This record gives sequence, C-alpha cells and structure tokens, in this order.
Amino acid sequence: MDEPLSLFTAAYLRDFATAVFKHFGVCKADAELAADVLVKSDLRGVDSHGVARLHTYFEMLELGRINPKPNIKIVREKTSVASVDGDNGLGLVVAPKANEIAMVKAEQHGSGWVSVCNTNHFGFAGYYPLMALERDLIGWAMTNSTKLVAPLWGAERMLGTNPIAIAFPGYQEPPIVIDMATSAVAYGKIEIALRKNENIPTGWIIDRDGNDTNNPQDMLAGGAQLPLGSQKEMGGHKGYGLASMVDILCCVLSGANWGPFAPPFALRQEIPERQVGKGIGHFFGALQIDGFIDKDEFKKQIDEWIRVFRSTKPAPGTHGPLIPGDPEREAETIRSKEGIPLLKAVVDDLLDISRKTGIPFGAK
Amino acid sequence: MDEPLSLFTAAYLRDFATAVFKHFGVCKADAELAADVLVKSDLRGVDSHGVARLHTYFEMLELGRINPKPNIKIVREKTSVASVDGDNGLGLVVAPKANEIAMVKAEQHGSGWVSVCNTNHFGFAGYYPLMALERDLIGWAMTNSTKLVAPLWGAERMLGTNPIAIAFPGYQEPPIVIDMATSAVAYGKIEIALRKNENIPTGWIIDRDGNDTNNPQDMLAGGAQLPLGSQKEMGGHKGYGLASMVDILCCVLSGANWGPFAPPFALRQEIPERQVGKGIGHFFGALQIDGFIDKDEFKKQIDEWIRVFRSTKPAPGTHGPLIPGDPEREAETIRSKEGIPLLKAVVDDLLDISRKTGIPFGAK
Repeated sequence: MDEPLSLFTAAYLRDFATAVFKHFGVCKADAELAADVLVKSDLRGVDSHGVARLHTYFEMLELGRINPKPNIKIVREKTSVASVDGDNGLGLVVAPKANEIAMVKAEQHGSGWVSVCNTNHFGFAGYYPLMALERDLIGWAMTNSTKLVAPLWGAERMLGTNPIAIAFPGYQEPPIVIDMATSAVAYGKIEIALRKNENIPTGWIIDRDGNDTNNPQDMLAGGAQLPLGSQKEMGGHKGYGLASMVDILCCVLSGANWGPFAPPFALRQEIPERQVGKGIGHFFGALQIDGFIDKDEFKKQIDEWIRVFRSTKPAPGTHGPLIPGDPEREAETIRSKEGIPLLKAVVDDLLDISRKTGIPFGAK
Repeated sequence: MDEPLSLFTAAYLRDFATAVFKHFGVCKADAELAADVLVKSDLRGVDSHGVARLHTYFEMLELGRINPKPNIKIVREKTSVASVDGDNGLGLVVAPKANEIAMVKAEQHGSGWVSVCNTNHFGFAGYYPLMALERDLIGWAMTNSTKLVAPLWGAERMLGTNPIAIAFPGYQEPPIVIDMATSAVAYGKIEIALRKNENIPTGWIIDRDGNDTNNPQDMLAGGAQLPLGSQKEMGGHKGYGLASMVDILCCVLSGANWGPFAPPFALRQEIPERQVGKGIGHFFGALQIDGFIDKDEFKKQIDEWIRVFRSTKPAPGTHGPLIPGDPEREAETIRSKEGIPLLKAVVDDLLDISRKTGIPFGAK
C-alpha cells in the first residue's frame, strides 16, 4: 500500500461502529455484535471486510434498505435443521443469531444446519466458525453475494464470490481455520492492480465479451471474475461447482435470491430487476465432535496433523506450507497489540460518517 | 484413446464383478452392491473408477488385505451424527451402508452425518449423492485417498485427490450433481499424457524437488500433483484448504489414517510405515429439504436455476456453461443404450481375473 496508514485500537473502532449502528435504531446488543464481527475482520487482517465496509452499511441503513430492528425468526425446523428469515436485518446481526441456532442444535443433537433468507452482507465468513471453536464445535459458514463471477464457459457475471469457511479446534496447537472465496482471487486484488495501474495474471478475470485479459480495467468495463481453477484444463469447472453449491445451500434452500439475482451490497451497483426470493442467503453448520470421536483425541490428532504438515519438505523459494488460518492468526496477534492500520481512504469514510451522525471519530 | 475398444452391457459387467466379489466370500447382497457402485461409474463415463479398478480389488482380496465379510458397526452416535468402523471391508460395501445411516438420520431428524474409518476405496464419490437423490435428499460424500497431492508451497505428496460430491434434485430438470477432486486435475489426465508422450500444462504437477514442470514423467519420478488453483496467485491455497477439510472430516473425525498416512489402494505403492488410525476414511451427509423449505418449491427453483444458468451468455468458442452433472448424465444415457466401451488393457485385466477365478468372461 502506498497510502498513509493510521493506527486504531480494536476497542476504539468497535465503540465507533457500535455507536453508528445504534444511531440508526439498532439495539445495543445487536450493535455491539455487528461491530464485533466487523472489527474482528480487521484484527485478522481481512481489511476488505472490516470497518472499510462501515460506510456502505451506513448508506444502506440511511436509505432504509436495511431493517435496523428485524424480527428474526425460524420459518421451518426439524431436530437438526432450520431455515431462518432475517427480516432484512443487518447480516452482521442475522448471521451470528442463525449460527447460534446451528450451534445449539449441534450441542443437543450432534449437528445443526441453518439456511437463512432475507438477510444482508454478513462480514467475513471466518467469524462464524471462530464462534463455533469457542464451544469446541466444528463450524461451517457460507454466503452468496453480489454477482461478480462467471461460470466456466460463461461470458457474464452470474455468481458471487460465495465463500466457504470451516474450522477445526486443536489441543495445544492453534485451530485450523479455512476461509476462502470460491473465485480465483478476491476482488480486492483486482482493485489493488487498478490502483497501481498494473496488469493482472491471465485467469483472474475475463472481459465483457468473455475473452481472457490481463487488464484490470476490463473488470470495470463489464467483465467478470473467474471461478477458482479459472480455465477448464486447470479445474475452472470445480470452482464453478463450489460456487453453485454455496449459492444453492444459501439461497434455494432458504428462499433467498440466488445467482445473478442477489441484491447488491453497494449503492453504485444496479439492483436486479427480477427477484426470485428474499434478500441474500447464508448457510451455517456445526458438528459436535463428541458425536463422532472423543473430543480430546480429535484435538490431539489435529495437533499432530498440524505438526506433520508444517514439516512438509518446502517448495523452492518458500518456507513450506502454511496451516490454513496462520496468516489471520498472526495478524490478530500483531494488531491486538499494535493496533489496526487503516488506509487514509477508510479513515476519510469514517470521518464522513462522523460528520453526518455527530458521533466523534478521530485519529487517537 | 488410440487403443481398441470393446462394448459390454452394464448388466454383463455387473454380473461378472458380482461373481468376482462372491468368489472371495463376499455375501451375495454385498457383492451386488459393490458391483453396482463400480459399473455405475462406467455408465456415467467415469472410466477411471469403474471396472478398470476391479483387478486391484481382486488383488487386494486375494492377498487378504481387504476383509470380505466385515462387521460394519456404529462406534459412536448422536441424534444426527455417527461414526462407523468399516472393519477393513470393501469401501464399495462399507460406504453405501454408512451413507444409508446418514440418509435415515436425515429422514428422521432433518440431517445425518457419518464419518467412517477402517474402510477402503469407495469407487466414485458421485454414487452416494445419487443414492440420496432417489430419496429426495441433498447428499454429500467425501473420501481421502493415497497421497498424490502437495500442499501449496510443499514439495512432497501429503494429501490424496480427496474428492467432494454433492447433488440437488430438480423437478422437471435433471439434478445438479457436483463431483470433483480437490486436485487441479484427475491423475488420469497425467496418465493419458504419459501414454501419448505429451507435455502437460504448468500447474498440474511439480517435480520431486518442488519445481514446476511440464513433463508428466516427473510425476512417476517422485513428483506430486498440485491442489486446485495450483499456484498461490491463482488460489492454490484454496484447493489445499479444501483437500485438508476433506482429510480431517473423513479421517481425524473418524479415527482413520489422514494425510500422507493413507494406506495405498494399489499394490505397487508403498505402504506408509507409520499408522495414525485405521484404514482410510469417508464422510457422508444428507439433508432433508422439507426441514428447510417446501420440497417441491425447492425443486422448482432448482429447475429455474438450471434454466437461468443454461442461458448464460457463452464465452467465445464455447456453447456456454454446463450444469454440473451434464456430461455424466449424457454418458449414462448413451452407455445404457449402446453399452460400455472398455480399453483393451481393461479387458485384458478382466480376462486375467477370469483365468484366475474360473469365472467366465468374454467379449459379447
């Protein structure tokens, strides 16, 4: 990054975000929850899904496009599954509550699975399995999102970057936390190339006619991201398959808007003319380890798994494989101590919110 | 393929495979089940996992490395989850029975999840979600397998090609069936390049020192396959993450041999010195749609999903996106009518089994 950075403590950003949500009538507990999801993303180094998004939440709330006081309810339920209607609330509030339902079911019945409709952007997917880890559960989370990705052999945006997250607790070792979009790269990497005026590798995006391109401007001109695998011979149908799986579990199973009909989470993006459901969708799962195997035995094997994989012979020019979740955990250690660095553009957005709401914000 | 092909009906191959399994003392029902899994793979065009593998099963049974009369039992259980010990039986028998447990739980409690240890190669992963479709369930299947794949930034084989399969039923449209290895390509594609003496694309494999290579011989010389995404900048950490997820759900959760310790399914491959569990592992899941949303409403939305995705603007030089499962379903239609084509090498293997067992086999 070439822009100047300011440092903020997590507590300061959490308090600010909480106040912003409360400003729109979100109750205290929900506002704190939403702020925690956002700032946890910053702590873990996932800058794209943290307070950098607060201005968009702010705009959506201001325009009345998100319901600050949702009546979140279970629409259908069986012993180990449920579907939830988020009443167009903040995804940052709806999602933790739906995930809680999945976790309680897992504690009672071995597993819990919740599909959610009528919800909005839920922050970073990894937050939800992290909640499950605190209760020694294996947690899963998925969500659909605004269309950005073309299916393999398609020449237009049909799917979101539809992430999948899952986490496994260790005993003495830290947990394994997988949190990945099903696109070849995060949209943020294309934005960085745009800012730096650099080319991007073949396989990240196609242009508006469906041709391969190395020019990130082609994305802005109506191109599309490619799914994980990018091309057929490299497994692009697999990334497309995974994105489709997420789309169906989150949306078709809950009654949300799937595929290209997902309502956008940014004001500048056009709202699809057609609706096939309510809001966007999420999918949460939780598994109770003791239903399968002794919990401590499992966690000790995870420790051993981690140690064995860490000792893999390294590829040339690397220090060997990382364990999924390593970079985010290391960021959290550093940022908890030293603070969260924000780009000037993000600080400006927060100052804009401050001006418009009267909630104080400043470099500290 | 350059080799001559012979055509066989599915029924003929099923009868032969059934007789082979019975020859080793597998009971009639189990032998028929195992043969059905194998031949269904051939019918669906997944030649690598069909009767082409029968000679390996034959060898493993002959050497006493697979138990023909396993006492398959539930080791632990909660309402919606269980772990199963396959008693070193044929994966082709253990897996359908474990999947059945998951499906019954789903019918009773909304979902069912079963992790399996002490089992062997289970054929093609898609078989199990296809079983779930017959009962209007959403079915999942995963398995670990012999090490072939390096984690991103690793220079040695640590994971199997660890497939994930999941299927969703349509109403008038055929189902969506996702069945994918978490490696960049199937090992079979490397074998084809070897046979044809052709180069392979960068990103399929690395050589024994961890360097990129286009020479498929480097795989035989101790190289490794790369995970889906191949390189860091193309998302190779995501394929590695997915393969790890499969490894842990199938093996750590059940008490099977994870990662590089998976016992091989071919006689020529070396058996790992260290054991960290029993056999290989599978993981099955089933979701009852009615626990989330009206089943017919779901299936009609799946129809609409399929139609919308089929009408995606095509990329240049293509006919547009396929729906996952299209190629396999089309193969099944053709092969059910015209027969299953087998390579001469496969026919020779089956003739060898015939000679050694006295079970008649011949071109028909």
